[in-house]
Amino acid sequence: MALKMIGFDGDDTLWRSEDYFAQAQATFESIVSPYVELRGDALHARLYAVEKRNLAVFGYGVKGMALSMIEAAIEITAGRIDAAAIHRIVQLAQSMLQHPVELLPGIRAAVERVASRWPVVLVTKGDLFHQEAKVRESGMADLFQRIEIVSEKDTATYARLLREFGIAASEFAMVGNSLRSDVAPVVALGGIGVHIPYHLTWVHERDAMPDAPGRVHAIDHAVELYDVLDAIERGMSVHATPTEASTKG
Amino acid sequence: MALKMIGFDGDDTLWRSEDYFAQAQATFESIVSPYVELRGDALHARLYAVEKRNLAVFGYGVKGMALSMIEAAIEITAGRIDAAAIHRIVQLAQSMLQHPVELLPGIRAAVERVASRWPVVLVTKGDLFHQEAKVRESGMADLFQRIEIVSEKDTATYARLLREFGIAASEFAMVGNSLRSDVAPVVALGGIGVHIPYHLTWVHERDAMPDAPGRVHAIDHAVELYDVLDAIERGMSVHATPTEASTKG
Repeated sequence: MALKMIGFDGDDTLWRSEDYFAQAQATFESIVSPYVELRGDALHARLYAVEKRNLAVFGYGVKGMALSMIEAAIEITAGRIDAAAIHRIVQLAQSMLQHPVELLPGIRAAVERVASRWPVVLVTKGDLFHQEAKVRESGMADLFQRIEIVSEKDTATYARLLREFGIAASEFAMVGNSLRSDVAPVVALGGIGVHIPYHLTWVHERDAMPDAPGRVHAIDHAVELYDVLDAIERGMSVHATPTEASTKG
Repeated sequence: MALKMIGFDGDDTLWRSEDYFAQAQATFESIVSPYVELRGDALHARLYAVEKRNLAVFGYGVKGMALSMIEAAIEITAGRIDAAAIHRIVQLAQSMLQHPVELLPGIRAAVERVASRWPVVLVTKGDLFHQEAKVRESGMADLFQRIEIVSEKDTATYARLLREFGIAASEFAMVGNSLRSDVAPVVALGGIGVHIPYHLTWVHERDAMPDAPGRVHAIDHAVELYDVLDAIERGMSVHATPTEASTKG
């Protein structure tokens, strides 16, 4: 089985992202907690309900998150929240969008090693403007033959990309931290998914490991990636496919 | 001079956009006017100052506009605006993002006629998620060989696209309503710009018509486009290049 292209996810695969969203949730809690009794999971569930409702309108990313947080803060406090508190949410978005890119340990060397043998592409989801800034600041843009910023990572998106790349799904391996966005749709199309769990997973991205023996692989760290891809090409059994989702590290 | 590809802008070239932003400005005025004496141009200048300051962080699009409006509303009212009024700004964004696409009169026939002779591509700027939704709803996606949604339409972006298309700038004509985003950068690279003014132009997009005899053309309506492109290929003098910007309307 010859691989013709390796795709990499961006957020939480190349660089930290969910940590900042988790911190933002904590900031949100500190902003609304003077107004309400709600705390912790109960509060986050209210926020997530608004985010989920707005996802079809706002899409992914920091700006949509901030607008949903503002709407949720107004709903949760029954309109009692004041303008200064709402302004802190706007400032939170500005600060997240300007946060320096923090590459995950060892990822540059791992991608370089893979890129020395296979063409690599970046397939990342979210806000175009923010993703472009992160790609630029990562210093890794030159490693990728193509950089695809997409609004949703589903089978339709991957099918379109594979058409544009001119390769069959069976010749493509996608590497990422999200079972829902990186592994499941590629495997559904007949490709290979390599899951590198991140220590945090947004509830929206949690999913079960697909059942496709030999086409789903899980590794603990990107340093193992080259050998796993090499073994896939040689048709060797590399890792037992886990039978259930592992969303943590 | 053989043209190998024709690029079309999206907002205010294929479909209405600036009208909704102008309406949003009026809504913004109605939201903050109970709190302040500021009206009209003086108020809009305050809003634009915040938008411009945030552009490098938020990029273009409705979500960034809404966050800037919220920040501007808080600043302009010195924090006196209440949560319900701010919520109206969030709802304004939701409503703009869900607004049905309104194609400009005659544009579909004009693009179809051009596409019958030259490969056409769509090069549109702004929020990925919203632009994708508009392309989908326009019903015109099938006419375009490629759809490029970019965060900024400058010479660097067009140079990258021309490399990807595999054509020289002199073989490319870009059609759009913005001198700054559609005409000037393409002409600077050595390509052809065809300007179709829209009756509204956001202050940020206003620019002078570039001085490049024979490579800048202005038409009043897309119905003239095929004949202009035909005349360009035949090397005929088609339109006098206007000596200054016409942002009219």
